[in-house]
Amino acid sequence: MQIAILLYHRFTALDAIGPYEVLRMLPQAEVVFVGEQAGPVTNDHGSLQLVAEAALSDVRSPDIVLVPGGPGQNDQMTDGPVHEWLRAADTTSTWTTSVCTGSLILAAAGLLTGRRATSHWLAREHLCRFGVEATSQRVVFDGKHVTAAGVSAGIDMALALVGRIAGDAAAQASQLMLEYDPQPPYDAGSPATAPPQLRERLQRSFRPVVTS
Amino acid sequence: MQIAILLYHRFTALDAIGPYEVLRMLPQAEVVFVGEQAGPVTNDHGSLQLVAEAALSDVRSPDIVLVPGGPGQNDQMTDGPVHEWLRAADTTSTWTTSVCTGSLILAAAGLLTGRRATSHWLAREHLCRFGVEATSQRVVFDGKHVTAAGVSAGIDMALALVGRIAGDAAAQASQLMLEYDPQPPYDAGSPATAPPQLRERLQRSFRPVVTS
Repeated sequence: MQIAILLYHRFTALDAIGPYEVLRMLPQAEVVFVGEQAGPVTNDHGSLQLVAEAALSDVRSPDIVLVPGGPGQNDQMTDGPVHEWLRAADTTSTWTTSVCTGSLILAAAGLLTGRRATSHWLAREHLCRFGVEATSQRVVFDGKHVTAAGVSAGIDMALALVGRIAGDAAAQASQLMLEYDPQPPYDAGSPATAPPQLRERLQRSFRPVVTS
Repeated sequence: MQIAILLYHRFTALDAIGPYEVLRMLPQAEVVFVGEQAGPVTNDHGSLQLVAEAALSDVRSPDIVLVPGGPGQNDQMTDGPVHEWLRAADTTSTWTTSVCTGSLILAAAGLLTGRRATSHWLAREHLCRFGVEATSQRVVFDGKHVTAAGVSAGIDMALALVGRIAGDAAAQASQLMLEYDPQPPYDAGSPATAPPQLRERLQRSFRPVVTS
């Protein structure tokens, strides 16, 4: 089972690595990080480089496609090689997935039209521009298209996906190996529970994520 | 504030990237991934390469040191350049931290002797070989030495650390930006809640992590 994780300039690393750690435990998993060109890809903070070992043209029909989000998503909203690759991969994939604002890239490529999907809470409203029904669920399955909310939600999505692909026991084994028994020291991870002033400050300072 | 994240062959990526995403939001954070030599470092699964932009000798006095775990920890248990670097960095660090079996490396370097610490649930018992009081808490603060349980616990540790360094509001802002509102689809992330047969299977199949 080939799992292709798309990398692009200014992606958010945890969007990719959270689900990666879960999905790589699937039986016969073969994970490939893929970029427009092969080579190191720099993240949103500029302090991390993850190597794309394959170029788009090297990965023709992955079983699972995963598109992370990040500020660099805004540069991936116009048609071109990445959208073409996503559309082609989606025709044969078993699952086409995204984390955070990765769903905006899938939407811009036309792959979520008429579907239910989610995104980072600060970006979710933009999904409707692409004919997508935005929801605030943390993980959304709509047929084979699976989207997760912001950044860390990719871990929950991947566990749910492993449950569907390989069964509950396989997903539980991944969860226990990752000791994923979350105990956040604050209850501020959702706009519904975070202090209102904090939520409003982030809303004010967050730049529009969709320019095209 | 310089944050040095140690990379070594066969590290676990989420151990490093989980806390990275939180800590990088600290005011004036400068993150550096450091390896014995600079260059790409391959993870435990063999399918991921993260670039160490600095060699040990390039990073002399980081404010925060973070040591991830992973199967490769076993090759980092003997004295040598990594232990020397950790001991030197610890003399001037504000915080010396680990995730998962990274605590065994800190312990083998002599930095946790007489302290309370934690590790991955499958490896925790080995801490006592190094004069460390092992606990099953998810995050353990003992002075400036902070250790987290397995893999995903690094996210909780980093949020707690940001709270101590920059205040609750800063930690909450990181949590909300990462939309860290965990909703695992199973309750199997701890040996206390996982199905007993699963726990026993992993205990049987897990190879000893400390050979020296």
